[in-house]
Amino acid sequence: MTSRPDRLIVDCLQYCNYSEAVFRQLHAGGVAAIHVTIAYHEDFRETIANVVRWNGWFERFGDLIFPGRQAEDVRRAHAEGRTAVFFGLQNCFPIEDDIGLVEICHTLGVRFMQLSYNNQSLLATGCYEANDAGITRMGREVIREMNRLGMVIDMSHSGDRSTLDAIEMSARPIAITHANPRSWHPVVRNKPEEVLRSLAASGGMLGFSLYPLHLRGSSACSLEDFCAMVARTADLIGVAALGLGTDLCQNQPDAVVQWMRRGSWTRGAPDPSVVFPAQPTWFRSNLDFGNIATGLSAVGFSEAEVDAIVGLNWLRFLTTSFGPPVLHP
Amino acid sequence: MTSRPDRLIVDCLQYCNYSEAVFRQLHAGGVAAIHVTIAYHEDFRETIANVVRWNGWFERFGDLIFPGRQAEDVRRAHAEGRTAVFFGLQNCFPIEDDIGLVEICHTLGVRFMQLSYNNQSLLATGCYEANDAGITRMGREVIREMNRLGMVIDMSHSGDRSTLDAIEMSARPIAITHANPRSWHPVVRNKPEEVLRSLAASGGMLGFSLYPLHLRGSSACSLEDFCAMVARTADLIGVAALGLGTDLCQNQPDAVVQWMRRGSWTRGAPDPSVVFPAQPTWFRSNLDFGNIATGLSAVGFSEAEVDAIVGLNWLRFLTTSFGPPVLHP
Repeated sequence: MTSRPDRLIVDCLQYCNYSEAVFRQLHAGGVAAIHVTIAYHEDFRETIANVVRWNGWFERFGDLIFPGRQAEDVRRAHAEGRTAVFFGLQNCFPIEDDIGLVEICHTLGVRFMQLSYNNQSLLATGCYEANDAGITRMGREVIREMNRLGMVIDMSHSGDRSTLDAIEMSARPIAITHANPRSWHPVVRNKPEEVLRSLAASGGMLGFSLYPLHLRGSSACSLEDFCAMVARTADLIGVAALGLGTDLCQNQPDAVVQWMRRGSWTRGAPDPSVVFPAQPTWFRSNLDFGNIATGLSAVGFSEAEVDAIVGLNWLRFLTTSFGPPVLHP
Repeated sequence: MTSRPDRLIVDCLQYCNYSEAVFRQLHAGGVAAIHVTIAYHEDFRETIANVVRWNGWFERFGDLIFPGRQAEDVRRAHAEGRTAVFFGLQNCFPIEDDIGLVEICHTLGVRFMQLSYNNQSLLATGCYEANDAGITRMGREVIREMNRLGMVIDMSHSGDRSTLDAIEMSARPIAITHANPRSWHPVVRNKPEEVLRSLAASGGMLGFSLYPLHLRGSSACSLEDFCAMVARTADLIGVAALGLGTDLCQNQPDAVVQWMRRGSWTRGAPDPSVVFPAQPTWFRSNLDFGNIATGLSAVGFSEAEVDAIVGLNWLRFLTTSFGPPVLHP
C-alpha cells in the first residue's frame, strides 16, 4: 500500500464486534479516532450497560484505546499511536422522553446522536417511513440542547425532510456520518443532491459508507468506482465536506443485523435473507484505510485532499462541533 | 463575627432543599465546597434524575455554583467566590447490584458513597441493625473499585464492625463525613473511640455533625459545648483528622425526614414524632460557619488549626482521595 503510515485517519461510524483483535487492527491500521455506536434500540439503562462494557475495555486495553471527549483527543491519539473512541447513539431511545438525559449521555462520552433510525422517533422521521413530517416539537428542543452541549446531530438514517429541517434548525453544522449519494446508488439510506448541497452549504459533513448495501454493486463494488463517486461528490459539494463513516460491522453475527432492522418494534416474521453482506475485498477491516487513500489518489485527489477526506476534515468539524456552547439567538 | 472572611470553608455533608436563596447563602457564607447528598433510597434511574436537576441548577446559577470534580476545584471555587458541589450517595442503591455503575456514577460527579444507610445493604451493615457481620463479598469488590476511581468511602450510617472493616480493607483513607463521638452523646449514629482512633490512624477524616440528634442537648446544644467536644476529639485523634459535615437539611419539609428513615423498606406506620429538629441558634444556615470558627478559637485552637478544621483538612484529604488510582497490591 502506498498510503503514508503517518496519515491521520478518522472513521466516523463503526459498529464492530469489538475485541482485543479489533483494537489491535485499529492500532496497526493507524486509525486515530472512531465514532462507535453504543445504542440502536437500547433504552437509557441498557445504554449505560454498554458504556460499562466500554469502560472495561478502556481499562484493559488502555495501551490501544481511550475514551474520546474533545477534538484534541484525536491529535493526541494520533501522536500516541492509540485510538480515541467517541460514543454515538443511532437513535434517541437512550434519552427516553427526558431532555435532561442528553447532558447525562454527553457527560458519559456520547458525542453523536441520530434523531431517528429508519422509523419515526420522538424527534424526527426515519428514512423508511412513507411520510416525513419533519422535526417534532421535542426534536427542536433536543437540537437546541445538543447544540448547547456540543453533541453532533447525525441524520444518517432519517428522512430527507427531517434532515433538511435539522440542517436549518441547528445552530451548529450537522453530520450524515454514514451514507452515499443516492444518485450513485438509489437506496433510501443514501442521500439526494438537495440534502447533500444543503448539508455542505451549512458547514456539515458527509461520511462515505462502505456498507455494501450503500454501494453500487454491493460487495462487488470496485475501489475505483467508489473513489470516482467520491470525486464526483467533491465536484458537487466540495472536498471540505467529505469524510469516511465506514459503517464497518466487523465480526458481528447475522443476528445483529436482524436486531438492527427489527429491534422490538415488529411482530412480523424475520426475513431470513437479512444477513451481513460480505465487505468489498479492498475494505474488510481497520487495516484497509490505506487502500482507500491509494484509490483517492488514483482518481486525482492531491495528497492534501486525501489527508482531508480520510481524517482532517472530521478533525476540523469535531473541533467546532465539540467546542464551546453555541446557543440559538 | 470575628472569623476571617477569606477562610476556606468546606462542608462535607449537606442535604438542603436547594434553591437560589440557599446558593446565595453559600456564596455569602464563603463556603468553597459542599458535599451534597443526591440519593438515599433512589435507584440508579432516580439518581440520574437528581443529577439532571443539579445540572439545571449548574446552568442557571453558574455564577454561584459549579460541579466539583477534583480537589483543585475547591481552591478554584474559593478564589472565584463560588461553591464547588461534590455529589454523594448516602447508600449504595444507585449502583444496584452492578459494580460497573460505580464508574458511571463517578463520571457523573459522584465522589462519595456510603456503603450502607442505617439498614443492611448489599455492601455493609447499617448502624441500626442488631447484628453487624461486616463488609460483604460485594462490599470488598466495591471498595476496590472506589479506591481505583477515587471515590470516598463514607461510613457515617454504617455499623461499627463494618466501619472498622472498611478502614482496614480500603487502600485509601476513608471518611465518616457526618457524626460525632459517641462518648459525648451516646446515640448509635455517633462513633465509639475505637472507630475514631482507627479512622485517624489510617489517615481518614471525621466530619462533625450539626444535626441536633447528634448533639448533646439536641437543639439546645451550646456552641461552647460543641467546640469543647471538638477540642477533646483533637486530643484523642489529632487535629488533622477533623473537619465539618454539618448534615444541614435547611428548608426541607418534615416529609423528607420521614422518607429518609423509612424509604420504602417498611410497611409499619410512620412515627409522627419524626420531624426535623430545630437547628442550634448558632448554626442555622451556610451563613453561620463564622460562628463555629469563632467558637473553635475560643476553646483554644490556633488560627491555623481553625483553618484546618473548617476547610483545609478536607482539602488535603480530597486531594489524595480524588488523586491518581490507588490499587490494592
